[in-house]
Amino acid sequence: MKVTVWNENRHEKQNSVVADIYPEGIHGAIASFLKEESLDVNTATLDEPEHGLTDEVLNNTEVLLWWGHMAHDEVDDTIVEKVRQRVLDGMGLIVLHSGHFSKIFKKLMGTSCDLKWREADEKERLWVVEPSHPIMDGIGQYIELEKEEMYGEHFDIPAPDELLMMSWFEGGEVFRSACTYRRGQGKVFYFRPGHETYPTYHNEEIQRVIKNAVRWAAPTPRTKPVYGNVKPIEQIEAKMK
Amino acid sequence: MKVTVWNENRHEKQNSVVADIYPEGIHGAIASFLKEESLDVNTATLDEPEHGLTDEVLNNTEVLLWWGHMAHDEVDDTIVEKVRQRVLDGMGLIVLHSGHFSKIFKKLMGTSCDLKWREADEKERLWVVEPSHPIMDGIGQYIELEKEEMYGEHFDIPAPDELLMMSWFEGGEVFRSACTYRRGQGKVFYFRPGHETYPTYHNEEIQRVIKNAVRWAAPTPRTKPVYGNVKPIEQIEAKMK
Amino acid sequence: MKVTVWNENRHEKQNSVVADIYPEGIHGAIASFLKEESLDVNTATLDEPEHGLTDEVLNNTEVLLWWGHMAHDEVDDTIVEKVRQRVLDGMGLIVLHSGHFSKIFKKLMGTSCDLKWREADEKERLWVVEPSHPIMDGIGQYIELEKEEMYGEHFDIPAPDELLMMSWFEGGEVFRSACTYRRGQGKVFYFRPGHETYPTYHNEEIQRVIKNAVRWAAPTPRTKPVYGNVKPIEQIEAKMK
Amino acid sequence: MKVTVWNENRHEKQNSVVADIYPEGIHGAIASFLKEESLDVNTATLDEPEHGLTDEVLNNTEVLLWWGHMAHDEVDDTIVEKVRQRVLDGMGLIVLHSGHFSKIFKKLMGTSCDLKWREADEKERLWVVEPSHPIMDGIGQYIELEKEEMYGEHFDIPAPDELLMMSWFEGGEVFRSACTYRRGQGKVFYFRPGHETYPTYHNEEIQRVIKNAVRWAAPTPRTKPVYGNVKPIEQIEAKMK
Repeated sequence: MKVTVWNENRHEKQNSVVADIYPEGIHGAIASFLKEESLDVNTATLDEPEHGLTDEVLNNTEVLLWWGHMAHDEVDDTIVEKVRQRVLDGMGLIVLHSGHFSKIFKKLMGTSCDLKWREADEKERLWVVEPSHPIMDGIGQYIELEKEEMYGEHFDIPAPDELLMMSWFEGGEVFRSACTYRRGQGKVFYFRPGHETYPTYHNEEIQRVIKNAVRWAAPTPRTKPVYGNVKPIEQIEAKMK
Repeated sequence: MKVTVWNENRHEKQNSVVADIYPEGIHGAIASFLKEESLDVNTATLDEPEHGLTDEVLNNTEVLLWWGHMAHDEVDDTIVEKVRQRVLDGMGLIVLHSGHFSKIFKKLMGTSCDLKWREADEKERLWVVEPSHPIMDGIGQYIELEKEEMYGEHFDIPAPDELLMMSWFEGGEVFRSACTYRRGQGKVFYFRPGHETYPTYHNEEIQRVIKNAVRWAAPTPRTKPVYGNVKPIEQIEAKMK
Repeated sequence: MKVTVWNENRHEKQNSVVADIYPEGIHGAIASFLKEESLDVNTATLDEPEHGLTDEVLNNTEVLLWWGHMAHDEVDDTIVEKVRQRVLDGMGLIVLHSGHFSKIFKKLMGTSCDLKWREADEKERLWVVEPSHPIMDGIGQYIELEKEEMYGEHFDIPAPDELLMMSWFEGGEVFRSACTYRRGQGKVFYFRPGHETYPTYHNEEIQRVIKNAVRWAAPTPRTKPVYGNVKPIEQIEAKMK
Repeated sequence: MKVTVWNENRHEKQNSVVADIYPEGIHGAIASFLKEESLDVNTATLDEPEHGLTDEVLNNTEVLLWWGHMAHDEVDDTIVEKVRQRVLDGMGLIVLHSGHFSKIFKKLMGTSCDLKWREADEKERLWVVEPSHPIMDGIGQYIELEKEEMYGEHFDIPAPDELLMMSWFEGGEVFRSACTYRRGQGKVFYFRPGHETYPTYHNEEIQRVIKNAVRWAAPTPRTKPVYGNVKPIEQIEAKMK
């Protein structure tokens, strides 16, 4: 399966804390553990031509992962619309952490995707609520992260098709942290953790969820639906003319 | 409750068949039966300034109904975005028939909203599948329409929060015809029937569904959610500083 | 609307802490605030003949509330099945707190309805996640209870039709605390708070949720569905003989 | 993966039409095409001791298929409860056609599972409504069956977690024909077609759906959830004592 990991890749260049945690960038870290799964993994970043998402790249991507934060506005609307069309055509999309505010996620959801947040080194526990889902494969009762940024409800998203995990935060909030959606022929997964100043993507359980999600989001091979003007069943065709 | 019925109002001007069925326009017909419910009903149409949807009108509308077909592209993007913000702020939205392809519905859904169609004077039966829903109040097992345009699956929408009715068409197709969604603080209802060349909105059962939907879509009085940077619970505030 | 509040009413008799908080019983406290809503409210308890749920009572109840805990097993299976049939026929059912383990709730859900729990005087915050729902009418961002019993995930229920509130607990857990279901013609609402040793049902926001839920759960007036062997549409009836 | 195909196997013995279509029984036909998928497939039938569902068989079954019709009442309640526990523990369950009225399906759903029906050699078209779902892998826009028994709405089931296909019937009805549910750790799939007097299970597209469903329903490997009394996070354990 062909996977592309897209990253804004700005914090890594501007903040030595982030660069120390992710010397190959967040995209590099994610690509690295996905490669353990014998997937065909490539990366793309904001400052490449066409953000690294040329038609050739997109047409050959079966699952796209998206991490962005400080430069959502710099993502070109034309590219965003191409990504959306590819999702509707069947490409899987995994949106990570602050990607909740990316143009592509907001466009697919239709809502503001707003939320509460706080940076206070809080403990987070992600509790499993849908234990039979394949994305929860191998995950225990919860995943605990010693320190993370808090995201709190109300999270302004459409009710997810499936709610897989709910987060607890030390400071008093909860959050719908692992949500699936189907849009057109494509599958979309939002996964909350991953603030750039914490080593979250080095956590093996977080990696496991993302690996599972990539497999879950793979396109389902099918003839594409037909839209537009169509004929009736033969039996009544004569009558209807 | 303040209700605004929006209509493109073009077929009525250009096609005498439509004008004969709806001498006051589709908006006039809908407004007329809604007024029986002691609602405060106004209308707005495409060719009015700002399509009749000024800030004053929108800010005073609690539920907006939308019928459009041949001129979706002429609806101004700025107005569409204002309507979307109002829905996210709590205004109810009822999208009728060919409104599936309106800018506002597509923007709130995030998908293409495409479908199959056929104009062949086919019998339609709308079967109730969620009988306890308030929008189904007073409706029997199904509503039968002697002649309607066919809309067929695949209908490229997000899975509805609630599927209330499924249509059967003589020529061999089915359709998800009555779908509810929540978006932000607002409620959205899509209702399939209502091709302009048939007297569908004169059908009392169809009227009943729309009346019920208006009541269901009324805003829920609440303090609006708070978004952005927030403080933790007091007990750990000190620790977190 | 006719409402019956059912309560096990055992803790009140055996534990003076509970009796002090609820001198008229939990059922009495709930009936008392529901009466403010000009509803026709009655109560029924375990130790009455037929648990107070005679055919006459059930046939005249439009919404039933259920609080039980230490004596679920003493509820007669025949009565439970009668209640289930009434729900399928349209009666609303509101299951409170430890009622998650009641026979009626387990029978309607099909799962174990098991969960984690802890009695440790913990702070609970119930966060609103579906702000446009009528049961959330008048509720702010969250309801805070200074001390409650903890219930934690995994809660072994079917995914709710609508998830309205999620609880945060001081000790590290989260819970799906306000869940709606449709079963047959009836509406079911599960609402978590209400441990007998805390004055939870004296909290006005908790009361508001329950009042809203009673209105939401009211039966929808409709012709009942027809089941069994049926005829086809007239057009093809001849052909099919 | 270990799969058990359970069949009532009575029509095959009593009706030569059925015996001619399914000389090895419905279970034999289903087992035969599942074996093409390199699955470890066994069968079990009503008239075997313990209906062929001994503890050893059940504990070694990862996905169970269920076809029953005329003898639902003869299935032993103890066996039904064992099957239910296995589903809640993670075993997949695929319920076929008239299995909608089986004790196991009704117990897991909590509703009557009633529906309309008619035996009139009607054309059925099963339309895909959730094209990205893995159970729809390889399926076109719809599956057409020249002759089948009609099942019509209202189908008294809980709203499915995912609605994958909707049936159109010549005589005027529609039906939710392919429905997924999660119950406990287990996945449940209901699939409508398969009346005993038609060669439905010889149809390759129907076979494809069932093959896909078996893979989808496979248990997800996880530590089982912990229920009951639990401790809080360490940080506040002292305070809470």
